[in-house]
Amino acid sequence: MAEVSELVASRLQTAIPAEWSVPETLRSSMEYSLMAGGKRLRPLLVVAAAEALGGSRDAALPVACAVEMVHTYSLIHDDLPALDNDDYRRGKLTNHKVFGEAMAILAGDGLLTHAFHSITQAGRRYGVPAEQVLAIVEDLARYAGPSGMVGGQVADMEGEQGLTELEQLRYIHEHKTADLIVFSVKAGGRIAGAADEQLKALEQYGRSVGLAFQIQDDILDLVGDERKLGKKTQSDVKQQKVTFPYFLGLEASRAEVEMLTAAAKAAIGGGIVPQPERLLDIADVLVRRDH
Amino acid sequence: MAEVSELVASRLQTAIPAEWSVPETLRSSMEYSLMAGGKRLRPLLVVAAAEALGGSRDAALPVACAVEMVHTYSLIHDDLPALDNDDYRRGKLTNHKVFGEAMAILAGDGLLTHAFHSITQAGRRYGVPAEQVLAIVEDLARYAGPSGMVGGQVADMEGEQGLTELEQLRYIHEHKTADLIVFSVKAGGRIAGAADEQLKALEQYGRSVGLAFQIQDDILDLVGDERKLGKKTQSDVKQQKVTFPYFLGLEASRAEVEMLTAAAKAAIGGGIVPQPERLLDIADVLVRRDH
Repeated sequence: MAEVSELVASRLQTAIPAEWSVPETLRSSMEYSLMAGGKRLRPLLVVAAAEALGGSRDAALPVACAVEMVHTYSLIHDDLPALDNDDYRRGKLTNHKVFGEAMAILAGDGLLTHAFHSITQAGRRYGVPAEQVLAIVEDLARYAGPSGMVGGQVADMEGEQGLTELEQLRYIHEHKTADLIVFSVKAGGRIAGAADEQLKALEQYGRSVGLAFQIQDDILDLVGDERKLGKKTQSDVKQQKVTFPYFLGLEASRAEVEMLTAAAKAAIGGGIVPQPERLLDIADVLVRRDH
Repeated sequence: MAEVSELVASRLQTAIPAEWSVPETLRSSMEYSLMAGGKRLRPLLVVAAAEALGGSRDAALPVACAVEMVHTYSLIHDDLPALDNDDYRRGKLTNHKVFGEAMAILAGDGLLTHAFHSITQAGRRYGVPAEQVLAIVEDLARYAGPSGMVGGQVADMEGEQGLTELEQLRYIHEHKTADLIVFSVKAGGRIAGAADEQLKALEQYGRSVGLAFQIQDDILDLVGDERKLGKKTQSDVKQQKVTFPYFLGLEASRAEVEMLTAAAKAAIGGGIVPQPERLLDIADVLVRRDH
């Protein structure tokens, strides 16, 4: 998996062609956040899902880069003073702290827009049929848009005034986090020409993995090791942020993660996904992670 | 043309399906700016270009709506305190003045993302071949992205520290304004299945019209009628903004607009565009406009 991460990182570095006329500071600002590291979970899922169905890694890479661009833009905008007002992310200064607010807004806009360009290259360069590429475009717009990630972001922001029900929190996690993960595995499937029932299985896998991932984040914020996480723990408590452990308690939250992981693995089992090993591994790694 | 404007406005009102689960304030914020009026020039150009080549108006409408969403998102982000810090646009409070900065950022993100969904509907609902729809997606990402509109926006922002050459100003106008106009006419052409040489003609038309449009804006800001414009004139001078009249003087700027308009009309003349009348009219209307 480290191999795929490196491959994605190297493709991201040249994602915006050098010969394109892009203002230097804009290019630097986009690159700064894109190359700031992170787990590259979403690109990994695109590639793993494509290969699980016998699809080509090369054809999956432009889409893997696209989803990382969308994830990165969402972090840049999320960190802005008007939103979470964060100075650091992954131990580095946030984009607006380095480049200023205006440039951070525009770098985010540029990354979001360019993600769609990257997707089209799966067709242009690697011969994925136009119908399939177009379905990926439609999915990304849906899962990252007003009824997807952006909607989750708004619900999260409004929820800061006080959530009273677990269902509201589930809505936030589903859209703010899980939707882009669902997109990733479905897009990988589409690259490989997945049948409808296979796409449905991947969607269920992604939905469960995405929710488990976010609950695990909540848990680590509560009881994780600051050195391993590379950030302060207990930030949710300090910000009075409502989380799964807040509603359910720590043990029930852990049980929920286990249950969701099992559900994710079951969804792609039974032969519907021909080579599910890597996807199964990812589900296990995510639940066992300590950072 | 008023008829097309109304059609676009009514489609925009239902652009995000009512049955989609979108947080209410996000929906209101996006609608507020989308329905705030304006000339609807870009949607008009999409439809006019499609019809000039014998394409279907229905198939052009999802793309016409998409370009208006992109234009609207760019205005919302442009008006933010970190950028132009404008309180009013078209006589109404700007988005962040009504909904707050965080929501304005997210409403812009939502509109930009949803624009790509809207484009896919030209294929999904009106049978435009996937290859053509995908080319429209690729074009939008390019013309609105880091080497297009967002790049122009950054150059404009950086230029506020003092432009010294007309070429820099031309770069800003070409990308910040003309690129999305070029996209509009090319996309209309693609809806109609235009041949490469027709797309090239439309591109030249769009490039010239777009630049003329922006220079005319500069001129109106200097000598226009405040009541007709619905905004204060002389704002460029007051903000010490460098414009075409600043570099060339008023008369030479007017001559430039005339020249560009003639070039635009010439580009689509000579039979290469079968029914160019509406596009020719639009070029004339834009140069004669007083608001």
